[in-house]
Amino acid sequence: MDENISPLHKRRLEYRPAVPNIFRNVHRMAFEKGEAALPLRDTEEIHQAFPKTCGQPILLAKDGPLRTPQPVSVGVVFSGGQAAGGHNVIGGLFDTLKSLHPANRVIGFVGGPNGILEAKHIEIHEEMLRPFRNQGGFDLIGSGRTKIESAEQLHAAAGTMKQLDLMGLVVIGGDDSNTNAAVMAEYFLNNGCKTKVIGVPKTIDGDLKSKEIAISFGFDTACKVYAEMIGNICRDTLSARKYYHFIKVMGRSASHIALECALNTHPNYVFLSEEVEEKNVTLAEITRTLSDLIANRAKEGKNYGVVLIPEGLIEFIPEMKSLIGELNKMEPTQDVEKAKSYLTPKALSCFEAVPRSIQEQFLIDRDPHGNVQVSQIETEVLLMEAVRQELERRKLRGAYTGKFQALKHFFGYEGRAALPSNFDATYCYALGAAAALLIDEGATGYLAFVKELACSPECWKVGGFPITALMHMELRKKEKKPVVKKSLVDLKGKPFRRLEKERDCWMYEDCYRYPGPIQYFGEPEIVDSIPRIVKLEQAPCY
Amino acid sequence: MDENISPLHKRRLEYRPAVPNIFRNVHRMAFEKGEAALPLRDTEEIHQAFPKTCGQPILLAKDGPLRTPQPVSVGVVFSGGQAAGGHNVIGGLFDTLKSLHPANRVIGFVGGPNGILEAKHIEIHEEMLRPFRNQGGFDLIGSGRTKIESAEQLHAAAGTMKQLDLMGLVVIGGDDSNTNAAVMAEYFLNNGCKTKVIGVPKTIDGDLKSKEIAISFGFDTACKVYAEMIGNICRDTLSARKYYHFIKVMGRSASHIALECALNTHPNYVFLSEEVEEKNVTLAEITRTLSDLIANRAKEGKNYGVVLIPEGLIEFIPEMKSLIGELNKMEPTQDVEKAKSYLTPKALSCFEAVPRSIQEQFLIDRDPHGNVQVSQIETEVLLMEAVRQELERRKLRGAYTGKFQALKHFFGYEGRAALPSNFDATYCYALGAAAALLIDEGATGYLAFVKELACSPECWKVGGFPITALMHMELRKKEKKPVVKKSLVDLKGKPFRRLEKERDCWMYEDCYRYPGPIQYFGEPEIVDSIPRIVKLEQAPCY
Repeated sequence: MDENISPLHKRRLEYRPAVPNIFRNVHRMAFEKGEAALPLRDTEEIHQAFPKTCGQPILLAKDGPLRTPQPVSVGVVFSGGQAAGGHNVIGGLFDTLKSLHPANRVIGFVGGPNGILEAKHIEIHEEMLRPFRNQGGFDLIGSGRTKIESAEQLHAAAGTMKQLDLMGLVVIGGDDSNTNAAVMAEYFLNNGCKTKVIGVPKTIDGDLKSKEIAISFGFDTACKVYAEMIGNICRDTLSARKYYHFIKVMGRSASHIALECALNTHPNYVFLSEEVEEKNVTLAEITRTLSDLIANRAKEGKNYGVVLIPEGLIEFIPEMKSLIGELNKMEPTQDVEKAKSYLTPKALSCFEAVPRSIQEQFLIDRDPHGNVQVSQIETEVLLMEAVRQELERRKLRGAYTGKFQALKHFFGYEGRAALPSNFDATYCYALGAAAALLIDEGATGYLAFVKELACSPECWKVGGFPITALMHMELRKKEKKPVVKKSLVDLKGKPFRRLEKERDCWMYEDCYRYPGPIQYFGEPEIVDSIPRIVKLEQAPCY
Repeated sequence: MDENISPLHKRRLEYRPAVPNIFRNVHRMAFEKGEAALPLRDTEEIHQAFPKTCGQPILLAKDGPLRTPQPVSVGVVFSGGQAAGGHNVIGGLFDTLKSLHPANRVIGFVGGPNGILEAKHIEIHEEMLRPFRNQGGFDLIGSGRTKIESAEQLHAAAGTMKQLDLMGLVVIGGDDSNTNAAVMAEYFLNNGCKTKVIGVPKTIDGDLKSKEIAISFGFDTACKVYAEMIGNICRDTLSARKYYHFIKVMGRSASHIALECALNTHPNYVFLSEEVEEKNVTLAEITRTLSDLIANRAKEGKNYGVVLIPEGLIEFIPEMKSLIGELNKMEPTQDVEKAKSYLTPKALSCFEAVPRSIQEQFLIDRDPHGNVQVSQIETEVLLMEAVRQELERRKLRGAYTGKFQALKHFFGYEGRAALPSNFDATYCYALGAAAALLIDEGATGYLAFVKELACSPECWKVGGFPITALMHMELRKKEKKPVVKKSLVDLKGKPFRRLEKERDCWMYEDCYRYPGPIQYFGEPEIVDSIPRIVKLEQAPCY
């Protein structure tokens, strides 16, 4: 039924992402080998774990002699949470493979990496792909969070690769999924499986940032959706002048999303987990900072404002970190009193300072690793309550005379599967094409990249580098393992410095900025904007 | 600083709303008197309260002889919560008054009706207005919730009118604000104050619907923002296939917003308060319905879905209504155990069935009328928990084998002050113009209207009708009062019938629809759409 498809959905099906010039003739493209890309740290240990794929050179696409590819099959899988543009990665992969050879086939694994283990797959055809072009979500083939790491799983994966005679496997995923991709690549090389494994940097969190990856895909769209909402709330509060809005935004460990949204909306205050950790800021200090802000604004008759909080903040507050550490170690219980009886006095006093409803959130069912589910804790409520109590104390001693009414928000799921921005649609299409060509090149254990994103798409540079170049050794389930390192906000980087320069003014002067909803038609300035943090990093600092 | 204004914000400043043909030459416009517009009910009592303004005729704009207006001053005030397009009401009012006579002045009351009482005002000039054209929020002059009803307040209001020599006062507000406007109009007539009072139908809730008012302004933009988010979440859940999203949408008593959003996004289930009340559906039945849905979907391997809940639902569930009634009557306490000791056994068993955190929400500080703050109760969490418990019981007896993971959302403040859709920008501009002309006509106690909204703006019909025509007698603080009646969803109307026809299919077949973000540039089908419920009501039902 036609009415079931919205007009915008329909119109976006016709969008044609611009392609980098290097892709104009994929038959005349080669990869230039650059220098060896070594791990971030722990080179020796990582080299030991990945003897064949560690230390491989960076590959950069350039013009080359005519290729004459043979028909091949390539698998593709979504791994982990949604990010806008995923379907366009498949689109770029599909179109490029078909351009290389019309008999090339693309096999989608259904429901994430588990589809590889169970060989649940479908062949992707143009008619099947068409309704998904430039659309959000991963629903063409679904996604999942299964990790392929055990010997048994790796064996099963190699079996599926052989069964389907796959020349390549494209893993569209975040840090852990790309760690898995590297493990598979190495395993396949060592076990007579010809399948080349190529990762594609996906994650709205933006924590795959590196020299070649200015930003992972999905970040732009998610931040634009959140910034639309945050801007709307800023305008609402400036009109109503009676609420403090505590807005938590998704993004577990890294605060890139909070930083990007703050630069685009100018809330009165924004926390960045990285800064809280670096400066060792306690909950008491956070509470004092916010209470000072609110009390000072009240003196100017402003009993309203907007505070932005990154989802992962709580893990970066020292005493909360210790409390969570103790809770992780104890026998799981949902009984608040029982939990209290296990805690050390210091952790107990921290636990007792949080409201009952938040205490219960600390004790909700553990995650699969047996850890406290930090994402279930309403940090925004915790801060609201802490501030409320502090302001009541100040009121008693006459140091605060304002009125504090607070509202909470959490923006996360709204932005992951949204209609991709032009930037994400185009970037993803290029990433998919890059993955196809890296496989054709015979590369494995590589992450596809598209760089110089601040230029127009025609000038984007394309290539790949070994996934191991993003790795370091990390404790996982009490064992040291080579994993892709999450890239956090660089407190010396230009985006953070820009924030530092601007934010003092935001506290009292209400310089709210209203980005409005993502636009798809009209002037390039409006429809083709790229993430602010990428622009700040790539352009000369003003 | 230019960077503080987003590109879209800037571009929207240039938008020129189309105007109804009747406004092409405001100097040659007259109002035709139609039949007397009588109250909805309780005519006699309302006539007694409004002897001068009750029973006035409908006024419809038409071509007329040349007018030669004298310069006048007109006041304008925002009353109540934000709705997108408010600034354009002022724009339409301002431009029309300036067209009628360049010396006409527009006076804005600051911070809502309280600005009238305290004569806090600013004269609005073009330069002041320019940065607000086509923008969201009410921040040009702010808003407030003070009601002008007591003799003292009415006296103060009349004093301000006289002090500023106002020929008219435009009250931009919802049901209660328009009740107030009618009271002021009558009072001014009876107390030698020349000021004509004209209301403008504002409210995202849509509960000012009537024959002449297909929809109040702000509804379209708010619903489009919510539908964007709901659609994104539908796509996310279809991709992740592991969460039930319980989404509460703003809109206190009426479920127009939930209905509009459902028709545009096709969630698996949507509750409408009006239907729950009509069918006397208990919480147990709601829980059973949802649990059946979830259990049946689980059988098809679908452990995910989207449920839409109107904000006011809880007040329409019979046992919750009784519980709230008892709580309203008792001495306020925030002590759960103390509250329990006051309740009748029936209310107690209802109260005990809700989770502790929700119990506390029932007891949060009362509203200014001493009532439970229903908007503070997380109905979405209440339903999630009720369903979770029911599914656990079913699991024990083997009747459910799925996995239930639920997430909550509340969309409200995100949509009230959003950048107005073309529809709201244009509709509001016409409403402001209509208000100016009704004042010029000498009408008072009227609500401005613009109708035939399903046609192109050039063909819109414009006029006014006495506010009393929307009134009935209602108990307020134990006293019977004439007030504007909230217009609820008509269960015999075409929009609801359309929902009834479609919704069975949504339950299991995942017919999610993704409206995407509001667009401002491009094809009319995409940029100029009107609310679905208006389209359904005004077009023939297929």
